Amino acid sequence: MVYGGDYNPDQWLDRPDILKEDDRLMKLASINSVTLNVFAWKALEPEEGVYDFGWLDETMDRMAEQGIKVILATPSGARPAWMDKNHPEVLRMSADRVRNLHGERHNHCYTSPYYRRKVREMDQILARRYKDHPALGLWHISNEYGGECHCPLCQEAFRDWLREKYHNDINELNHEWWTGFWSKRFSRFDEIESPAPQGEHAIHGLYLDWMRFVTHQTKDFMNQEIQAVKEITPDISVTTNYMSGFDGLNYWELSEKLDVISWDSYPAWHHSRISDVEMGARVGFYHDMFRSMKQKPFLLMESTPSLVNWQPSNKVKRPGMNILSSVQAVAHGSDSVQYFQWRKGRGAAEKFHGAVLDHEGSEHTRVFKECAELGKILKSCKEIQGTMVHAEAAVLYDYENRWAIQNLNGLSSDRREYERTCMEWYEALWRHSIAADVIDMTQPLDKYRLVAAPMLYMLRADIAGRIKAFVENGGTLVTGYVTGYVNENDLCFLGGFPGDGLKDVVGVWEEEIDSLYEDERNSITWLDGSLSKPSYPVKDYCAVVHALENTAVLADYDHDFYQGMPAVTKHPYGKGQVYYIAARTETDFLTEFFGRIAEEISLETNAGLVKELPEGIHIAKREGDGETYYFFLNFASEEKKIVFYEPQQFTDLIDGELFCKTELSLKPFGVKILKK
Amino acid sequence: MVYGGDYNPDQWLDRPDILKEDDRLMKLASINSVTLNVFAWKALEPEEGVYDFGWLDETMDRMAEQGIKVILATPSGARPAWMDKNHPEVLRMSADRVRNLHGERHNHCYTSPYYRRKVREMDQILARRYKDHPALGLWHISNEYGGECHCPLCQEAFRDWLREKYHNDINELNHEWWTGFWSKRFSRFDEIESPAPQGEHAIHGLYLDWMRFVTHQTKDFMNQEIQAVKEITPDISVTTNYMSGFDGLNYWELSEKLDVISWDSYPAWHHSRISDVEMGARVGFYHDMFRSMKQKPFLLMESTPSLVNWQPSNKVKRPGMNILSSVQAVAHGSDSVQYFQWRKGRGAAEKFHGAVLDHEGSEHTRVFKECAELGKILKSCKEIQGTMVHAEAAVLYDYENRWAIQNLNGLSSDRREYERTCMEWYEALWRHSIAADVIDMTQPLDKYRLVAAPMLYMLRADIAGRIKAFVENGGTLVTGYVTGYVNENDLCFLGGFPGDGLKDVVGVWEEEIDSLYEDERNSITWLDGSLSKPSYPVKDYCAVVHALENTAVLADYDHDFYQGMPAVTKHPYGKGQVYYIAARTETDFLTEFFGRIAEEISLETNAGLVKELPEGIHIAKREGDGETYYFFLNFASEEKKIVFYEPQQFTDLIDGELFCKTELSLKPFGVKILKK
Amino acid sequence: MVYGGDYNPDQWLDRPDILKEDDRLMKLASINSVTLNVFAWKALEPEEGVYDFGWLDETMDRMAEQGIKVILATPSGARPAWMDKNHPEVLRMSADRVRNLHGERHNHCYTSPYYRRKVREMDQILARRYKDHPALGLWHISNEYGGECHCPLCQEAFRDWLREKYHNDINELNHEWWTGFWSKRFSRFDEIESPAPQGEHAIHGLYLDWMRFVTHQTKDFMNQEIQAVKEITPDISVTTNYMSGFDGLNYWELSEKLDVISWDSYPAWHHSRISDVEMGARVGFYHDMFRSMKQKPFLLMESTPSLVNWQPSNKVKRPGMNILSSVQAVAHGSDSVQYFQWRKGRGAAEKFHGAVLDHEGSEHTRVFKECAELGKILKSCKEIQGTMVHAEAAVLYDYENRWAIQNLNGLSSDRREYERTCMEWYEALWRHSIAADVIDMTQPLDKYRLVAAPMLYMLRADIAGRIKAFVENGGTLVTGYVTGYVNENDLCFLGGFPGDGLKDVVGVWEEEIDSLYEDERNSITWLDGSLSKPSYPVKDYCAVVHALENTAVLADYDHDFYQGMPAVTKHPYGKGQVYYIAARTETDFLTEFFGRIAEEISLETNAGLVKELPEGIHIAKREGDGETYYFFLNFASEEKKIVFYEPQQFTDLIDGELFCKTELSLKPFGVKILKK
Repeated sequence: MVYGGDYNPDQWLDRPDILKEDDRLMKLASINSVTLNVFAWKALEPEEGVYDFGWLDETMDRMAEQGIKVILATPSGARPAWMDKNHPEVLRMSADRVRNLHGERHNHCYTSPYYRRKVREMDQILARRYKDHPALGLWHISNEYGGECHCPLCQEAFRDWLREKYHNDINELNHEWWTGFWSKRFSRFDEIESPAPQGEHAIHGLYLDWMRFVTHQTKDFMNQEIQAVKEITPDISVTTNYMSGFDGLNYWELSEKLDVISWDSYPAWHHSRISDVEMGARVGFYHDMFRSMKQKPFLLMESTPSLVNWQPSNKVKRPGMNILSSVQAVAHGSDSVQYFQWRKGRGAAEKFHGAVLDHEGSEHTRVFKECAELGKILKSCKEIQGTMVHAEAAVLYDYENRWAIQNLNGLSSDRREYERTCMEWYEALWRHSIAADVIDMTQPLDKYRLVAAPMLYMLRADIAGRIKAFVENGGTLVTGYVTGYVNENDLCFLGGFPGDGLKDVVGVWEEEIDSLYEDERNSITWLDGSLSKPSYPVKDYCAVVHALENTAVLADYDHDFYQGMPAVTKHPYGKGQVYYIAARTETDFLTEFFGRIAEEISLETNAGLVKELPEGIHIAKREGDGETYYFFLNFASEEKKIVFYEPQQFTDLIDGELFCKTELSLKPFGVKILKK
Repeated sequence: MVYGGDYNPDQWLDRPDILKEDDRLMKLASINSVTLNVFAWKALEPEEGVYDFGWLDETMDRMAEQGIKVILATPSGARPAWMDKNHPEVLRMSADRVRNLHGERHNHCYTSPYYRRKVREMDQILARRYKDHPALGLWHISNEYGGECHCPLCQEAFRDWLREKYHNDINELNHEWWTGFWSKRFSRFDEIESPAPQGEHAIHGLYLDWMRFVTHQTKDFMNQEIQAVKEITPDISVTTNYMSGFDGLNYWELSEKLDVISWDSYPAWHHSRISDVEMGARVGFYHDMFRSMKQKPFLLMESTPSLVNWQPSNKVKRPGMNILSSVQAVAHGSDSVQYFQWRKGRGAAEKFHGAVLDHEGSEHTRVFKECAELGKILKSCKEIQGTMVHAEAAVLYDYENRWAIQNLNGLSSDRREYERTCMEWYEALWRHSIAADVIDMTQPLDKYRLVAAPMLYMLRADIAGRIKAFVENGGTLVTGYVTGYVNENDLCFLGGFPGDGLKDVVGVWEEEIDSLYEDERNSITWLDGSLSKPSYPVKDYCAVVHALENTAVLADYDHDFYQGMPAVTKHPYGKGQVYYIAARTETDFLTEFFGRIAEEISLETNAGLVKELPEGIHIAKREGDGETYYFFLNFASEEKKIVFYEPQQFTDLIDGELFCKTELSLKPFGVKILKK
Repeated sequence: MVYGGDYNPDQWLDRPDILKEDDRLMKLASINSVTLNVFAWKALEPEEGVYDFGWLDETMDRMAEQGIKVILATPSGARPAWMDKNHPEVLRMSADRVRNLHGERHNHCYTSPYYRRKVREMDQILARRYKDHPALGLWHISNEYGGECHCPLCQEAFRDWLREKYHNDINELNHEWWTGFWSKRFSRFDEIESPAPQGEHAIHGLYLDWMRFVTHQTKDFMNQEIQAVKEITPDISVTTNYMSGFDGLNYWELSEKLDVISWDSYPAWHHSRISDVEMGARVGFYHDMFRSMKQKPFLLMESTPSLVNWQPSNKVKRPGMNILSSVQAVAHGSDSVQYFQWRKGRGAAEKFHGAVLDHEGSEHTRVFKECAELGKILKSCKEIQGTMVHAEAAVLYDYENRWAIQNLNGLSSDRREYERTCMEWYEALWRHSIAADVIDMTQPLDKYRLVAAPMLYMLRADIAGRIKAFVENGGTLVTGYVTGYVNENDLCFLGGFPGDGLKDVVGVWEEEIDSLYEDERNSITWLDGSLSKPSYPVKDYCAVVHALENTAVLADYDHDFYQGMPAVTKHPYGKGQVYYIAARTETDFLTEFFGRIAEEISLETNAGLVKELPEGIHIAKREGDGETYYFFLNFASEEKKIVFYEPQQFTDLIDGELFCKTELSLKPFGVKILKK
């Protein structure tokens, strides 16, 4: 198990005593990996063409001596001031067409020929210098790619991208963007500009294509970095660190050339409005998505051992939470736990961001002690590395669909909540300890038995056809309101929603959709009385739908003019079936509802061994080489007891002892890793 | 009765099947009118100087064949991309002096010589081409004029406008703008710039004159469009579509050359904080204002048959509401019901805006069926066309006063609420089914018996004198706090408010005004016990006033240092009287108060026939050619019963039957049109 | 006692009748001082190089005749339009690098050579013209200095300032700004730009130095104005008017060359969420700070006799409040009461700002009558002029520390509340009528017995050493959470907080700090039961601290993982002691806590004469020439009774009578001034 974090010795070169302490304390914490060089360009090239690798050579050697592997970053995440001064074209231009001044980080033009050339040069110097260094373990390409540039170079590149997409036919573009509306037909590609607050921002097709172009251009930039190092070190894997929640890039599209997915996880644990249990599910969602991207173990590249410094309120992780959240990552398929950062810097923007080592500097802080404890746990889990999570269920969450929903004109502008809704549907499975993948529309469906696809507003490419085949062949689809409205360029389907042939698969026609005010509620009644409550509140959106022939109505509306009309339906189709939820429900309903479906289709759950799953406990499983590892995670701040159906024969991986009981107690935020 | 909506066949030219369906379905819905060409410039002139009228010719012919009249728009509401590329001067410059990029619509410089010339050219081409076409019914000049441009051409035009207003005398301007304050006296007109966030924005006189100039320049632009078509089609009437709530233009000033007023009505029915009854009053306010502008029937140019797509929450109109709100328009003097739009487009910004025809495309939707039902109702109301509403009361609501109040430094910056206050005073009359005009300060008062003039902060032109004459001659004026503070250039009157001679007419001196915090309340006691409650809460503003000689105090304050001081007064003046309300009250007080006055002066009410007017029912009346048409409108979501004093002899216009009962039941959102 | 206000006769030159009324009414109100010329540049120099001093000559003469002293302003607070037109360099450039247009006031570039030369010229013309005029009493240098300019001239001046501070050594700057982080090391000073939204805004050292430069440049500008007049009128004192709450300038630094401190006080009395008692404490805080700046009487330069016009809600001062708040100023050391302004102007931005004379124009308004009453009171207080307030306690409130806390990344971004916390600690003393100075970190501590220093995040210069000496020598320090984190350039101290040697003085190690959500609370238990309640709520911040050897724990936490850990401690050090409060408490706790300390160390309180101090009463004292003046101020809106321990022998300064009772009643907002 990789255990470590970002390490910035270049900030401490005048303090050899501190560097020496680093060696001593890393050992104490069982650190076996550091990420170097993330923002070191200026340290490596203090003036244009003048290089200084001394400090990095020494650090690499020192790490090698300590038996620590280096995740070596290409330093393209921040540029030195001299570069911006000498080559202003590298500075990003914002949507309002104002060129940035030098400052911050991550504000490069990804199109700039100079920057592309210069980054390739720097990456290859690094690759050549350290290709045979024993410490070199992995390439960390740049840092948290993101953002967009509207400079003239990017405008031209965007137009070229459009020319290619639309076969150099402006009328094809005009049709797909529906520019007849508001007299917006273009005569020539060079009339087109990227979206701007003082320019065009009402053509959804333009917006979507711009977002796609931004992903394309970022990917192109990243791929040339990957190529630069791969030419020299073909056997060293490459990753880049992704961010949860970030919607500026389609990570699925970006990932093609990466060997490993890694991400930075900074959830706001102990939130005043989101329980730790709910937060546990949300973080699980991201872990599962990043694992699903390559269908193999991923890396947790950054996390904080205590707090961050950029939340509205920055709470310290309560005792136990750092271990719980780190083991959760492993439980979902991570082969690492990494922190940002090893040691707090003395100054600048992130000096109060949690780190293993405080400004205080010793091993006697609460945070260091918990990190050291986790170090020992991870050592004992070494054999888990490389094993996988297997899921019979998948939640369909799609970045392009998110862009489309976010930008659409309609519904409630402040409560689109596509990502959150996907998370809530995921949470319903997670609360039953049902393993799930999180996939986008380009991924195969046929390996799953259940696919949950909320708010499938945009039907990209051939997804409608693949859904049809999936259900025909026996799959169970759960979908609902706002499904099948538009094609991939945001053109509405004609003939009734869900469109593109899905109406007959889903078995309903969604005639209208009513948006509720934030304080409004309707409710739905579950007709056969088989759920725990007679009626469940719904909010935000109520679709007014008609059940087609053969569609069973499972619940109907309690109020308003659509009282008595279908609210939840079930439609047998081929060997499979489709469930449809017409309105936005709370997660308690979803949990019961998905539990019922899981039972009906005998979906595998990791809670199969236990009599009852207490609120707040999630059981995860990794498998490989004939071994099975169970993770028992307690997200509740109270002690919880799990009762097995019968005495189980496990090895407790953390203490190495045999575990052979019918009961398992977990302390608040406690964890247990048991090997079958 | 004109019945129809915006029709954009140019978006469907590749789908003749759909155009054919349009014909079939318009007939089914009793549509007799369409608005064409609103955003068709690019379709008509695909390249500069290259024209294509084929599709429009065909559509005009097709409409003529179907017996449908065309409201033909001049297409100046949106420009083709080639124009912005070739002639950037047409692009508006915002207040921060940034020139727009091509995009959106409605963003032209109204001063641009090129745009003026080009629009005139296009308008005349259209007029010449269709002047004798049997389908041509009305000119729809441009679309929803609005906005302002701060480009150098507009700056120069603004200075010329100032030179003319101030007789080329910079010192006259300096006096009226009170530029002695903060060392702001100008030496020359060319030192003046329009208000800017990074420049001048504290001279109220400058702001007011800028707003007046914007209206002037827009009017000048519109009038040259009117002239362009009138030169060729002198007998075809012209209108432009106004917007409710919009405060960027003084519509009274703009209307001079229009033959008919029309407006676009998009209220948020079924709002979570505004009851449908209250909303009914607000919409009535606008209908009555737009009718009052020309003192003749107006047109409802746009509305939605179901929902809009740009509210924070977009609710569908409940069953019945489309018919109710459409008939309400007719009841207040509209000779049309028109929708935006006939058929939902497949893409772009308004694809989810309600339309008669859904993407689904058939006549089997709830919305289509209600539209068809309304079509039949309107057919049966044909004879009402041209009849008028007669009002003995008027609410004075003035756009320039609104600008002045909105921009003043003082009171509570977040609760000026001038428009809303006017609506609440109007609502008090509306709840008694008292017909009212809504007029601005330039309109004659002598035709009314009651004028309600809240927050008459700015006394434009000769309004003070005309008010005095109105009261002297027997009129009843109701006014209140924040009245008579400034002249038309925002200079305070000296000698005590209300100024300009009104103090003696109103009979009070307003010494101070106290602003309350949002959660603060005071209350007032009605002294003679004749209202239903002993005391009524007041909020926002409490004027501290002194009753002059002969002024009767009807209510006084309950709390604070002005406890016991006058809160409502009555002052006999000449043959008339003035009521004054010192503090902002709730509508329940206003309703009782205006009811009491109406009784006292025997003001006519349409509720005269009925024993009691249930909450939520409004009765309106149109008269003409010796006929009287009563409209009974139920804005409540429950059934309501109206009891007449004695059996009435009516013809029910909708079913053509004789109505001869003492009771009338109205379903939720139900309507009844009875002819006497 | 100076009594008067801003007077703008140049706005009324066409109304000699009004100027004559001014003379009559000033006498009636006992006015003895006016401030002239504040925004008169355009009136004095209507065109570049063309002067008109006639009106000012006449006004000066008229004032002299009336026996009224003139506070003569240099008119640099607003520029004439011709100057901006002819010399655009004088216009400020905002942080986003947009040059202002002409408009508003106070928007000059303080670096501009033209503006500096021109202002000096104008100031000297004025000084020469009026140096021997009998009316000239005081120079009022410019008006409410503030704001910053980012133009190229200022950028260059900023770089020069940095070169000087960092000894022309870019590496010293790099170290202090910790630019190693995010690859931000600079190679040359000319790579540096001021903070910008589209540029650098994450280097705290840059931000702090920019703020210091802004103060430096403003001071340099002000000092050249002072020098301009001092060269000609060396014996006339100079002041400039400061603003409460304003954080753009470090007033302590700015004050060096001023003879007298003056300030503009505009509190929001009668606020819906802040009681008048609390507001009284807040205003007292500012009075005491401005008095402490020169350790001598100050001037209240501006205030309103009724309301302002720029609050969200503008409430009129209740009867009595103008007298109370004016006498409060005197009680805290002011030798004046001045208003903005004498007479309301007819137009522009501040026409609804309260003034002695209303637009109504007579002496019969409530406001005028109260001003006249106050005039008489101030006349009777003449002998108090020049006497001082003596304080044994000080609250340490530092502008640079405020900048640092406001800009730090961490804690809760919306609840830093440094200034408010200082005010709340001050309020705890004020509620016991304990006189306090309010000082910054540069001021000597040794004259005090108690120093209250909340949130001493940044330890500037030698403050840590001076605190140590202060405590060693017997002083009592009260401090708390977020103390001793960084040095003056925002570099964190290593070795544990509070740093720079303070840990051993304070007796605690602050290991972590937890931020609470806005709706979260913890509480602390006072361990020895000596306070009135068993437990007190805490909010916002809870530091997790360890008591060092010899540190007594007075209170501990009730909840969360730090339950039972120290919340309040006391550490004896040398001859003194340090109290430390680990979490943010409410003021009721602070009041009890500081009361207990005051008792313990026998701190002097002005409430020593009275048996019990009723809620809302503050007793202040001025002393000099062997006389003692007691001010009894009632901030409550109810009548309050004060009972003396024994009959006191006083002279009532207002009515001149002997006061010899054991009881004193104060009306709502009542005042009493008694001389011992």
